Amino acid sequence: MGLELYLDLLSQPCRAVYIFAKKNGIPFQLRTVELLKGQHYTDSFAQVNSLRKVPALKDGDFTLAESVAILLYLSRKYKTPDHWYPQDLRARARVDEYLSWQHTALRSCCTRALWQKMMFPVVLGQPVPQETLSSTLADLDSCLQLLEDRFLRDQDFITGSQISVADLMAIEELMHPVGAGCQVFENRPKLAKWRQRVEAVVGEDLFREAHTVILKVKDTPPLDPAVKELLHSVRSLLQ
Amino acid sequence: MGLELYLDLLSQPCRAVYIFAKKNGIPFQLRTVELLKGQHYTDSFAQVNSLRKVPALKDGDFTLAESVAILLYLSRKYKTPDHWYPQDLRARARVDEYLSWQHTALRSCCTRALWQKMMFPVVLGQPVPQETLSSTLADLDSCLQLLEDRFLRDQDFITGSQISVADLMAIEELMHPVGAGCQVFENRPKLAKWRQRVEAVVGEDLFREAHTVILKVKDTPPLDPAVKELLHSVRSLLQ
Ligand SMILES: N[C@@H](CCC(=O)N[C@@H](CS)C(=O)NCC(=O)O)C(=O)O
Ligand SMILES: N[C@@H](CCC(=O)N[C@@H](CS)C(=O)NCC(=O)O)C(=O)O
Repeated sequence: MGLELYLDLLSQPCRAVYIFAKKNGIPFQLRTVELLKGQHYTDSFAQVNSLRKVPALKDGDFTLAESVAILLYLSRKYKTPDHWYPQDLRARARVDEYLSWQHTALRSCCTRALWQKMMFPVVLGQPVPQETLSSTLADLDSCLQLLEDRFLRDQDFITGSQISVADLMAIEELMHPVGAGCQVFENRPKLAKWRQRVEAVVGEDLFREAHTVILKVKDTPPLDPAVKELLHSVRSLLQ
Repeated sequence: MGLELYLDLLSQPCRAVYIFAKKNGIPFQLRTVELLKGQHYTDSFAQVNSLRKVPALKDGDFTLAESVAILLYLSRKYKTPDHWYPQDLRARARVDEYLSWQHTALRSCCTRALWQKMMFPVVLGQPVPQETLSSTLADLDSCLQLLEDRFLRDQDFITGSQISVADLMAIEELMHPVGAGCQVFENRPKLAKWRQRVEAVVGEDLFREAHTVILKVKDTPPLDPAVKELLHSVRSLLQ
């Protein structure tokens, strides 16, 4: 059995892994794990990732979790073009810096924005207190400002003139609040131009395909009550 | 000006960077940034890291934040022994996987354990509700279990038979609740043996030196009220 990628395109790090693999012509079997159907709680998925999170990779007898580790593994194994994870010492350090920073910054506020603005009230039918949402949107705004001022600066991409895995991870975070109906790019011309550049490199068709799920998330049918019970971990997203 | 490392040994990722640099004989100027004196809010530190967090690195005109990025930068620039960040594809992926996982898992619960059990009640004189602390200690327990079962398994170190930066990052997390008086290793013989192995590689003297601050944290003198005001970000640690 060749490379298998366990993904749900509802998940931002899964979209980054999907685009990276497709764009680089890496052959893989897509194993869809639908989180909103609780498929990450099956025994068979636990064999691949006992952390029960997507993305996850299986390559023969080797399994791997964590989007960052998966992207770097693929870049090394398939020797993808240098710009994705540059050899240059400083450029690579910039990618690593962004990939570390995002876990507790952009990831956290983009996930909360999606769940508080869309998933809880619209999909789960649970209203979210206005102060909770406001505070999340304020955090999101600060993170977007840091992405602009600290990581993108006056460059075309996060490491300079070429796209890297850091840009892929970042754009996928931002498409989460976009899916929730937040105005992410409207008053941010610098980010809007960067998005156009990322989209141009990825290619319009692949970009559209990767975002069909998140851009239609408001049409998710009501969840099965048994699955609602299973989604323990999302409760913390109400904070 | 050569390499400068901006650290506070009260911080777990700073201790990992400090031990890594010392152990590998990397020459650096130590620039101490005392968080409990609010020194990360000075203008001069903002020049080095506008995120206002430690660790931070300055190497001539190049500045870098994020412990993971700093460790990898040092390992590449100073060509440290392979085992710290192995060339082998799978072993390296295991290090990356751990380094990604810890940000929102062990890091989060070890930080909260220190602040809720020691810093708020003892140093800041602010009692912490019993349920808050209990829930943090339960999270800590789950994370320790994952560290054992999922990352360490039946190996000597996280990637197998040799120490890597993942082990350094992990031991430094665990020394945080130890500093707060939690029994981290007492009922966990596997983790206790792993700690001994890590300590043996690091060397007893360097290990002791790196932990003087955290192991005496309960004797921290009362904080300056102006600094208490500045420590915005720690408020979220009460959740
Ligand atoms: N740090 C991990 C996070 C993975 C993660 O949280 N995945 C989410 C989807 S974005 C998930 O599987 N959630 C299911 C759950 O936690 O129950 C990564 O970057 O891969
Ligand atoms: N992800 C960063 C986290 C750095 C971090 O949060 N540092 C803490 C000390 S452990 C800090 O500087 N806190 C000061 C503050 O947030 O005000 C890393 O691993 O380097």
